[in-house]
Amino acid sequence: MSTKSLPLSEERIRELVSRVGTPFHIYDGDAILKNAREMYDAFSWAPSFINFFAVKALPNISIVKLLSDFGMGSDSSSYPELLISKEAGLEGDRIMFSSNDTPDDEFKKAYELGAVINLDDISFIDSLEKAIGTFPKTISFRFNPGSERTGNAIIGNPVEAKYGLRRDQIFSAYKRAKELGAEHFWLHTMVASNELNKDYIAETARMVFTLVREIYEETGIKIESVDFGGGVGIPYRPEDERIDWRELSEDIEALYRDIIEKNGLSLKRIAFECGRAITGPYGYLVAKVRHVSHKYKDYVGLDASMADLMRPALYGAYHHITVLGKDNEKRDHLYDVTGSLCENNDKFAIDRPLPEIEEGDILVIHDTGAHGHSMGFNYNGKMRHAEYLIIDGSIYRIRRDETYEDYVKTQVDMERIE
Amino acid sequence: MSTKSLPLSEERIRELVSRVGTPFHIYDGDAILKNAREMYDAFSWAPSFINFFAVKALPNISIVKLLSDFGMGSDSSSYPELLISKEAGLEGDRIMFSSNDTPDDEFKKAYELGAVINLDDISFIDSLEKAIGTFPKTISFRFNPGSERTGNAIIGNPVEAKYGLRRDQIFSAYKRAKELGAEHFWLHTMVASNELNKDYIAETARMVFTLVREIYEETGIKIESVDFGGGVGIPYRPEDERIDWRELSEDIEALYRDIIEKNGLSLKRIAFECGRAITGPYGYLVAKVRHVSHKYKDYVGLDASMADLMRPALYGAYHHITVLGKDNEKRDHLYDVTGSLCENNDKFAIDRPLPEIEEGDILVIHDTGAHGHSMGFNYNGKMRHAEYLIIDGSIYRIRRDETYEDYVKTQVDMERIE
Repeated sequence: MSTKSLPLSEERIRELVSRVGTPFHIYDGDAILKNAREMYDAFSWAPSFINFFAVKALPNISIVKLLSDFGMGSDSSSYPELLISKEAGLEGDRIMFSSNDTPDDEFKKAYELGAVINLDDISFIDSLEKAIGTFPKTISFRFNPGSERTGNAIIGNPVEAKYGLRRDQIFSAYKRAKELGAEHFWLHTMVASNELNKDYIAETARMVFTLVREIYEETGIKIESVDFGGGVGIPYRPEDERIDWRELSEDIEALYRDIIEKNGLSLKRIAFECGRAITGPYGYLVAKVRHVSHKYKDYVGLDASMADLMRPALYGAYHHITVLGKDNEKRDHLYDVTGSLCENNDKFAIDRPLPEIEEGDILVIHDTGAHGHSMGFNYNGKMRHAEYLIIDGSIYRIRRDETYEDYVKTQVDMERIE
Repeated sequence: MSTKSLPLSEERIRELVSRVGTPFHIYDGDAILKNAREMYDAFSWAPSFINFFAVKALPNISIVKLLSDFGMGSDSSSYPELLISKEAGLEGDRIMFSSNDTPDDEFKKAYELGAVINLDDISFIDSLEKAIGTFPKTISFRFNPGSERTGNAIIGNPVEAKYGLRRDQIFSAYKRAKELGAEHFWLHTMVASNELNKDYIAETARMVFTLVREIYEETGIKIESVDFGGGVGIPYRPEDERIDWRELSEDIEALYRDIIEKNGLSLKRIAFECGRAITGPYGYLVAKVRHVSHKYKDYVGLDASMADLMRPALYGAYHHITVLGKDNEKRDHLYDVTGSLCENNDKFAIDRPLPEIEEGDILVIHDTGAHGHSMGFNYNGKMRHAEYLIIDGSIYRIRRDETYEDYVKTQVDMERIE
């Protein structure tokens, strides 16, 4: 039996479905804020603790504003994500600009907003200075540990990763930045994605704290702030266990006392940039069964598709499914739950045991609060759908359905260029 | 050395880049039409030969219109693709509506346009009648051969496919359709994707012709028209050989004489629904090198990303790369060619031998004329870029760059629903 809960009663979901139609994503803002509070309470020992919410996970201004009002910052990875952060009320060092293969105009915009600029490559020291015409007082570097860490399944082996500075580059990077006028230094890393092993995350903290000490010993430069990146996983499967913020925090605090404080160092700020762990479990894709069909296997065809949720097709990811009103029935049927794209990997689940399903049933696909809507595409002319947000028990629309007019908007009448 | 050619001279590409900026897709309309002519000439023996261009491959109205003016039809898989076909001047039996998990409004629209409706499941006979309030005079069914065929690498095993009717369903399907008033019958299948083995495609023709005979023998119903689907592959790798239309046509003609005509049968129309084989090789993604960086491996960072071309990340697909002006240099450097998404699978090529690359170099990524722009997403706030079309040697813009305003257009101010 599922241990997964729904954000609203069955009746309210049915009411909402009959009012606004399917499919849609709905996010439980109250649960998101409760989770955020738990995270911040757990890390209350940490100097000026902040989580930079990874905008890419759920790039809706209303969501980023909700988290900004709570006190979080944003991890922005592109110009549009910087603009979303700004519209959500963020600026200055509440924005971590952590971009890969960065163009000059993004450096400029990040600088203009006062964001902490996190450099992904040693050569970007020069690119940044050239782009903005000066060097910022505050700078961050992304460390890639290479073979020192094994990486995890989703993010891959650090040696194969296109991100960050090697160990042999990072010391000279800080020295060079100091020469160019930087006064406040951040150290950033990101070596996990959707990791459920608390020890792996704590190990990242150990690596970062140790490197802070090594950088001080080798260069005399005091790192003021550290960012462990994101990568805290969520329990997609009912049998998965979530990482407990308090337990993780206790491990990291012990490492801080041992590696930083015992060596006479201190930090002004400790940060994460979790996205998935903040909103992931509190998003739900609500869809309706269009057809149940019997081919060589049995298929449940939904009105949602890969355009709404691509993780199963892209990563083979598991997303739990609740058949509304049938959660206490025996899961004695085996279905492929599919979207409507003419693409055979458009399947939300393969060989999933579920109660018997009929046309018109409402299915709730869990854990779509991160990397769900944001990864949707328009392949096959499929539209991306509306998003709703629950606040204090009330339901708000925060995105409308995409239309055909939106879809063809960038198509122009043939215009001769040369 | 590459055997891949470019659509314009190096000078014209550089001129275009300096005029419109990078990245963009450019399609060689002249080469597309030459290829289309070769296909139609090869199949001139076939009764009323038609190719329904798979709109999903390149859903730009200007492209569909180009092919419509030439004489092709469209294979439309959704409501928006039906609208694109209509805007491109298509209607009636020049539209094959071949959709999966079809909603009622799409059946209605297809019927209104007079499209050939291709049913993907036996239960859709009733769904269709209910949706449009009658049964169309012309009907098609999609056959899934299950274990009779092995499938190919991309489309997967037919037994695992969510498409079509089983052998034991297809005979009763035609009988039921006839009872409901259908008078003209199509038989459709689609069992390959990007297949370069001509014999596999010819084998599909044999399967379809044989089934035409079996349906006649078993039910007395004469199939008038057949659609072999698409699936004709293209040579992504320089060493791949394209399928020769004439050789394929000769094989299929022999099967037609042998299986259809020798048994006293005939067909009124033979169709393909190729997309990739029509436009794929004649599309190019032109991008600029932002950074060359040296981490544990060497990386070439482009201004394009998965938002422009997702096939390498989604399928591990090979796309050939030409470094403009360096095609005669030795490919003695090994690079990962990456996009700028904060997603480690945003790589156009891994461990690719290329000439030495510098910042500012122009890279042309080949074979983006199908399933390129159309599969782009906005993850990380990445925008989809412009498309250009060459006609009679002139260059036309047929799509503009996406903007931040487009990107956030569906986001609405929080509006209370209940």
